[in-house]
Amino acid sequence: MARDQLRDFVERIERLEKEKQEIADFIKDVYGEAKASGFDPKILKRVIAIRKKDLAEWQKEDAVLDTYLSALGMVADA
Amino acid sequence: MARDQLRDFVERIERLEKEKQEIADFIKDVYGEAKASGFDPKILKRVIAIRKKDLAEWQKEDAVLDTYLSALGMVADA
Amino acid sequence: MARDQLRDFVERIERLEKEKQEIADFIKDVYGEAKASGFDPKILKRVIAIRKKDLAEWQKEDAVLDTYLSALGMVADA
Amino acid sequence: MARDQLRDFVERIERLEKEKQEIADFIKDVYGEAKASGFDPKILKRVIAIRKKDLAEWQKEDAVLDTYLSALGMVADA
Repeated sequence: MARDQLRDFVERIERLEKEKQEIADFIKDVYGEAKASGFDPKILKRVIAIRKKDLAEWQKEDAVLDTYLSALGMVADA
Repeated sequence: MARDQLRDFVERIERLEKEKQEIADFIKDVYGEAKASGFDPKILKRVIAIRKKDLAEWQKEDAVLDTYLSALGMVADA
Repeated sequence: MARDQLRDFVERIERLEKEKQEIADFIKDVYGEAKASGFDPKILKRVIAIRKKDLAEWQKEDAVLDTYLSALGMVADA
Repeated sequence: MARDQLRDFVERIERLEKEKQEIADFIKDVYGEAKASGFDPKILKRVIAIRKKDLAEWQKEDAVLDTYLSALGMVADA
């Protein structure tokens, strides 16, 4: 068993995971700042998820969602 | 160590997990049926998620989302 | 839009999801009973996860884990 | 709606999420390197998960697991 090699891999992964966690904490801080500025973190997350998609694709999905919701009487007919 | 008692707990949990998996498979089947009938499973999932929420609460969120998206120029002004 | 068909799919999925949630709650109850009987739910979950695997496969993995841990000085040499 | 402020929050979060994803990709690369060097990524992950815990705590859990497994006849008596 190449002990040093194993230890090197383990410690490299641990350093990277620590960095990743720090950035995750920064992201949480920014959502906190946004909330303190009056923005809704939950809606902000939806915006960011939508921006990851192709906008036209998202708009098409949203239109289909509206037809389903109105077919179920949950929103006024689109 | 109460061997029989441990085995009983393990086997009860395993039976219940098996039942739960069977129902998860049924749900997948229904989504498959819906897809075959021309419905979009992804949108159907969103409908079901929305129906778990208070409708007025969801409509308020959706309106806020629209204002964020139009503020970012992603949709025409609400 | 086949409104009745859509409603049927939605309601079938919702009924199945409700059943699935009930079974998940039963599972939680059994873990609660096991805990009250002195068993550790976290370890019980590991046992159940191991029983889903091929036992020989798990034993091989566990032996490899021991060699890694002892190579890192975390356990006495296997 | 403070459009610029909203855009600033969105873009800051997106930059941080991009950084986080890059680090996640680096981690995947290191696991790939470890695999190419003959280490088992799945076991490596278990080692890293164990190193996040208090070692004595993990050893105690592992001993309890052994007693459960031998009570169920899955391993020779501890």
